[in-house]
Amino acid sequence: MYDCIIIGGGPAGVSSAINLKLLGKSFLWFSSAPKKVERAELIKNYPAFPSITGKELNEAFQKHIESLGIEMREEVVTGVYETDGHFTLLVQDKQYTAKTVILCLGVETSKPIDGEEEFLGRGVSYCATCDGFLYKGKKIAVLCTDKKFEHEAEFLCGIAEKAYVIPLYKGYEIKSPNAQIILKKPISVSGDMRLRKVNFKDESFEIDGMFILRGSVSPSTLVHGLKIEDGHIFVNRDCSTNIAGVFAAGDCTGRPYQYAKAVGEGNIAVHSVVEYLNNITR
Amino acid sequence: MYDCIIIGGGPAGVSSAINLKLLGKSFLWFSSAPKKVERAELIKNYPAFPSITGKELNEAFQKHIESLGIEMREEVVTGVYETDGHFTLLVQDKQYTAKTVILCLGVETSKPIDGEEEFLGRGVSYCATCDGFLYKGKKIAVLCTDKKFEHEAEFLCGIAEKAYVIPLYKGYEIKSPNAQIILKKPISVSGDMRLRKVNFKDESFEIDGMFILRGSVSPSTLVHGLKIEDGHIFVNRDCSTNIAGVFAAGDCTGRPYQYAKAVGEGNIAVHSVVEYLNNITR
Repeated sequence: MYDCIIIGGGPAGVSSAINLKLLGKSFLWFSSAPKKVERAELIKNYPAFPSITGKELNEAFQKHIESLGIEMREEVVTGVYETDGHFTLLVQDKQYTAKTVILCLGVETSKPIDGEEEFLGRGVSYCATCDGFLYKGKKIAVLCTDKKFEHEAEFLCGIAEKAYVIPLYKGYEIKSPNAQIILKKPISVSGDMRLRKVNFKDESFEIDGMFILRGSVSPSTLVHGLKIEDGHIFVNRDCSTNIAGVFAAGDCTGRPYQYAKAVGEGNIAVHSVVEYLNNITR
Repeated sequence: MYDCIIIGGGPAGVSSAINLKLLGKSFLWFSSAPKKVERAELIKNYPAFPSITGKELNEAFQKHIESLGIEMREEVVTGVYETDGHFTLLVQDKQYTAKTVILCLGVETSKPIDGEEEFLGRGVSYCATCDGFLYKGKKIAVLCTDKKFEHEAEFLCGIAEKAYVIPLYKGYEIKSPNAQIILKKPISVSGDMRLRKVNFKDESFEIDGMFILRGSVSPSTLVHGLKIEDGHIFVNRDCSTNIAGVFAAGDCTGRPYQYAKAVGEGNIAVHSVVEYLNNITR
């Protein structure tokens, strides 16, 4: 069991990883979302760098991480479950356990689809390799938010009898004979005890399951019972959430959405993790 | 009237100044305490710098500040008073007014003397040039914490009939004929309605006033009514204190005492200042 698992690779995650490493804690670090830091044109308020591009700052972060021998895994965490005072994380078809979790999820740019959370585990899945086999010979929809998930979409098309594939980006290359490409955004999913339909503005398709392949899962979907306040993860001054052992840092905890704030909170979160670990092992 | 006055020149103050400047706010920035950053041997968890000495990081901060044309004044703020919804700051014998204040006071390394806060304004003073003339021909004590305050001590010796000068450092050079040098630490000051005595472990001296010349004043002495919790300034998540318009950032708000946390809070405090300014001018 790891001391901690960090979810998210932005500045808060970077700061968390650096501090956990320096403090000698065992941890895993997952990130799948695209690095927004890279897209910042020019940053002028990260103290000690009068003017730096997002790309340069990200490179400096990467060098810092590499200098400490820290590895970031580019995998999507699809669920965090509390059991017997520790946490089990589902990462594709693997499971990892940790005593604490630091959520550095950033700000959600994609809202969940209407009905997505309601039918999670009853037809909606985030993990092709975990749940794909459940839909052998059935009808599914596959919402694909990024080119990098195409191999998972292809994998699902190979299992299902028919797959409505919905790519939300340009230049898709999904060519399975079972795939029917739909070039519009779904507005909701619906059903009864189980998922039955994916709905678009002007039509609906009957399905047995829907795979949503995106880089991140919304915080409240990821961690059951997590307190959300004004659209952000509620945290105390020490970056603890309402769930003992779960901490959060960076944009996901609220404004200002700033690099300095994010690295500061990553630092605070790790110090709180260490204190928490000391208390549970006492 | 300024939009904001920052008190304190550590990383939280640096971050506050950078952000206020970039956001186009008018402000003054005072600092008098020695820069503790410079004394840090090696910093390994300021993200983007794998390994940097305190001296180097401080130089990088200074370059950042200079690149923005920001000026830091090396003067001691001795009082912050709220009047008519704004703040008046006493800085030596001058006064400045501002709509908001950011306290970046760091961690107090010197505790106040017993009775110091009780007799403030009734015999205890922090400001030689402000209150010195009140003690013309009288008996005073002068607690001098640093060589740089010696000219103020000399000034006071020149006014008083007799001055018990208490230097708390080595290599003092106070030579006034009115000065009696006392080479031990006072344990308390006492009196009735006014200050009457400075007390040492083994003796006491009758005095009419006592000047305490140190680089910083404790937060609760500096700002009347400021809420202190567990020895630190109480702040909310947005770095606001219990007094509307007064914000705090960095070590003075509590652990962890870390650069990343300090710059993060400086950033947060400024964003809260801006929101506060928007609200009061609406």
